[in-house]
Amino acid sequence: MDKARTRRHARTLDLRRGRIDMNHGSGGRATAQLIEELFLVAFDNERLRRMDDHAELAMPVGKMVVATDGHVISPLFFPGGDIGSLSVHGTINDVAMAGAVPLYLTVGFILEEGFPLSDLKKIVDSMAAAARAARVQIVAGDTKVVERGKGDGIFITTTGVGVVDEALNIHADQAQPTDCVLVSGTIGDHGVAIMSLREHLTFGTDIVSDTAALHDLVAHMVRAVPQIHCLRDPTRGGLATALNELADLSGVGIRIQEAAIPIRPEVKAACELLGLDPLYIANEGKLIAICARAQAQDLLTAMRAHPLGAQAAIIGEVVADPHAFVEMETAFGGRRVVDWLMGDPLPRIC
Amino acid sequence: MDKARTRRHARTLDLRRGRIDMNHGSGGRATAQLIEELFLVAFDNERLRRMDDHAELAMPVGKMVVATDGHVISPLFFPGGDIGSLSVHGTINDVAMAGAVPLYLTVGFILEEGFPLSDLKKIVDSMAAAARAARVQIVAGDTKVVERGKGDGIFITTTGVGVVDEALNIHADQAQPTDCVLVSGTIGDHGVAIMSLREHLTFGTDIVSDTAALHDLVAHMVRAVPQIHCLRDPTRGGLATALNELADLSGVGIRIQEAAIPIRPEVKAACELLGLDPLYIANEGKLIAICARAQAQDLLTAMRAHPLGAQAAIIGEVVADPHAFVEMETAFGGRRVVDWLMGDPLPRIC
Repeated sequence: MDKARTRRHARTLDLRRGRIDMNHGSGGRATAQLIEELFLVAFDNERLRRMDDHAELAMPVGKMVVATDGHVISPLFFPGGDIGSLSVHGTINDVAMAGAVPLYLTVGFILEEGFPLSDLKKIVDSMAAAARAARVQIVAGDTKVVERGKGDGIFITTTGVGVVDEALNIHADQAQPTDCVLVSGTIGDHGVAIMSLREHLTFGTDIVSDTAALHDLVAHMVRAVPQIHCLRDPTRGGLATALNELADLSGVGIRIQEAAIPIRPEVKAACELLGLDPLYIANEGKLIAICARAQAQDLLTAMRAHPLGAQAAIIGEVVADPHAFVEMETAFGGRRVVDWLMGDPLPRIC
Repeated sequence: MDKARTRRHARTLDLRRGRIDMNHGSGGRATAQLIEELFLVAFDNERLRRMDDHAELAMPVGKMVVATDGHVISPLFFPGGDIGSLSVHGTINDVAMAGAVPLYLTVGFILEEGFPLSDLKKIVDSMAAAARAARVQIVAGDTKVVERGKGDGIFITTTGVGVVDEALNIHADQAQPTDCVLVSGTIGDHGVAIMSLREHLTFGTDIVSDTAALHDLVAHMVRAVPQIHCLRDPTRGGLATALNELADLSGVGIRIQEAAIPIRPEVKAACELLGLDPLYIANEGKLIAICARAQAQDLLTAMRAHPLGAQAAIIGEVVADPHAFVEMETAFGGRRVVDWLMGDPLPRIC
């Protein structure tokens, strides 16, 4: 079999100077070569090597969790990560927000004709490294190619499969009045890092995306407080929109204190310069947790004991409110409604 | 909660004249409105309504199977289907080729700014109808929007999750010398339907895509012959490429008879006119099956008893061949090597 495989490709892919052409999407020899010489090498595991059009998976006992996320971020490479690591972290995090352990990923690439194979290799290697670090296997995939001008380099859609303990009941509609609202760290880092890169701004200190896989932090939190009510990662739309979603789905109000929200001084300064409100800026390695007041201190302690939660804080509380408003006490002692994101200040942020 | 939801969108989406704008990808109010007024209405089920960023699923006993498939077909609407139904059938079929029962789908949309909401609604309704007909639930999704000129209307990546009986062992590497090779019906219908539309050709009789979900046919086949060795759907690259994949992965040769391969006369005529070889044309509702010679007649009978296998045929046999060649006895009595697809005669066929 190995002999037959080697026979098939007279020349190996030129991963330094080659480019994607329409043949790579044909399903024929060129597609097979791309899969064998690039994807299989990077993602290597027994299920992929089987080259079925699907993967068979063993599942541990528990409820299964699936999530899917498309990634169209521009630019593709940014301080702290790239579209490859982001596409692994983003979907792992959606699975983790059920309190689940992510196990497997599938990946669908949509490539534009002319995309450099060297960039594709960098991205694929970054995905492989992120998956390895997260102990998640990439078990199935698909590649399509569109003509020049009909795409934008590379889009990546990943789907995650995980398993959650039957005893957990963590959902966006479980927040209750008197609950506490926690955030796992500083907000706005990802969006401001991308925006600064797009606008060619520098701020003395480098602002770096917070892109990270949060499932280890979540496992840590769930061990400390299995009764967590809600988890949500404030990606597109930022903290403000994620809090509004939680309030809306749970049918409660949320009050937060501006002074309690962790934010890096350089991110704050950049937001002022760019006219952006950090509450609406995307994060890719942060989560919001809501739990009963009596357990909030334990949860905070558990979060702070993990590197990805070192700057965790209690930022507010859940209140009874039929209008499901999110309100913020400002640093000046006033109070304002924090609405959903309207419009889009930062398109293609993930 | 319902009250809060209604409050949020002052005006409902204009599904007749509206268009996708960048705000629909913001993660804010406009995204929420698109999800609630279009996707939730069409795909309605308990898991989606929960509006978590993931879905929790119960799995019956067995091995889990996952598959993922991106869809970039152009044009979006074609005789016999559209990108919506295709994106449901394509992934269901990849899952079904394990002998599995597909249960759940996730969907990732990548939309281009300016895409008509009326077209999106048609596509989403078509997905919903295809999923319902296949008894598969769409349980999680994601929507991204890219600027005008950075996409091509709509790309859809679906991921399927199914379950397969532990006793089955259907894989692309299981073909053995003396096995028989069967195909479930006429080849080339999908590719020729798309190509005719692109080239504005008509052939008296309409050529219609064969896009269909094959899992019921597969269930029928597996009941009759649980020991099936291989299943593969000959999509991109056509029958020729799928047979080469099976030969290569199993380390065997395959011999087929040209005269035994079912093909519609109008598809054959269109291929001659367009200079295409039907062996390399994509199918979206056909499968190849390989099983022991002693069971081939039973399998053929089972396939013919199902509407999607009514024109099934035994088209060849597996032979010992260290080179893993696919060879065809032509209608004129000669013999030729049938190679993998080289190049891409029909880009963006799925």
